[in-house]
Amino acid sequence: MTFDLDDAIAVLHRTPATLRALLDGLPDTWIHRHEGPDTFTAFDNVGHLVHGERADWIPRARIILAQREDRRLAPYDRFAQVHESAGKSITQLLDEFAALRAGNLVTLRGWRLTAREFALEGEHPALGRVTLRQLLATWVAHDLGHVAQIARVMAKQYRDEVGPWQEYLPVLTRGGPPG
Amino acid sequence: MTFDLDDAIAVLHRTPATLRALLDGLPDTWIHRHEGPDTFTAFDNVGHLVHGERADWIPRARIILAQREDRRLAPYDRFAQVHESAGKSITQLLDEFAALRAGNLVTLRGWRLTAREFALEGEHPALGRVTLRQLLATWVAHDLGHVAQIARVMAKQYRDEVGPWQEYLPVLTRGGPPG
Repeated sequence: MTFDLDDAIAVLHRTPATLRALLDGLPDTWIHRHEGPDTFTAFDNVGHLVHGERADWIPRARIILAQREDRRLAPYDRFAQVHESAGKSITQLLDEFAALRAGNLVTLRGWRLTAREFALEGEHPALGRVTLRQLLATWVAHDLGHVAQIARVMAKQYRDEVGPWQEYLPVLTRGGPPG
Repeated sequence: MTFDLDDAIAVLHRTPATLRALLDGLPDTWIHRHEGPDTFTAFDNVGHLVHGERADWIPRARIILAQREDRRLAPYDRFAQVHESAGKSITQLLDEFAALRAGNLVTLRGWRLTAREFALEGEHPALGRVTLRQLLATWVAHDLGHVAQIARVMAKQYRDEVGPWQEYLPVLTRGGPPG
């Protein structure tokens, strides 16, 4: 499937409502369990997405669009949510995510990007040269990856409870830390 | 996490709205692509969930609860949706799923199950003896597995478009058919 801005925005626009439908009002026990040491809970995943709205996607797109001499994208802090989400409820995080995402999509649409801008490049701290098009496609895939991760982390809480059905449910053993 | 009926229903109740938020109104291109030969599209996943509401979870629970001499659970047709979903739109499938699920949760709540019923057994055609508690936990994990699968299948459509970011996105290479 070829990248298309309208297709991408169609997904980006839906992620906050998807996570709200999945998580808001759930018993805490579903929200605050992980899939092993140093892995994200559902709560951590949403906090991570909030951080991305503030620090990653749009700021990085701005650096690429500016095409200054220094096009280095700031490194991404994968654990920023540990302190940024402290003391918040899942509902607060979902609200923050929805508000930030809505604003970022207004910004993105306002740029009226064309093929010329999609091909512009920045310098990723580890991956080297990347295009705006790749950044925007990654934003979409990253959203979907975290939706999948949240569902998987939740499913795993019933790994023992499903008994012999475990072998039919690859989601219970996939991903997360080794073992 | 120990199985708890209220916790389980909290998830089961949210799946139709989650899938509606994720999928309804999306461009068709996101809905009808798979992750390789003989794998499910997003559309197939929802059709599979619809079939489960009709043919699997509640009918199997009834067999276990009845405790007749013959407690064999009917085999599950993993490809029933191929004909059952033919000619329908994703919106129709999402509506069907929501209506069937709502009815099934009324049935489930109406049974007022206790620890005694959770321990009752049926005979799975391949897995052998299974309890009602395991069946209900599997219903929850199965839902979440398909939410994860849909998000993954969608993410994979941008596998090439993300360029060098692919190595940071395990969702793009995980699951589905070999390779």
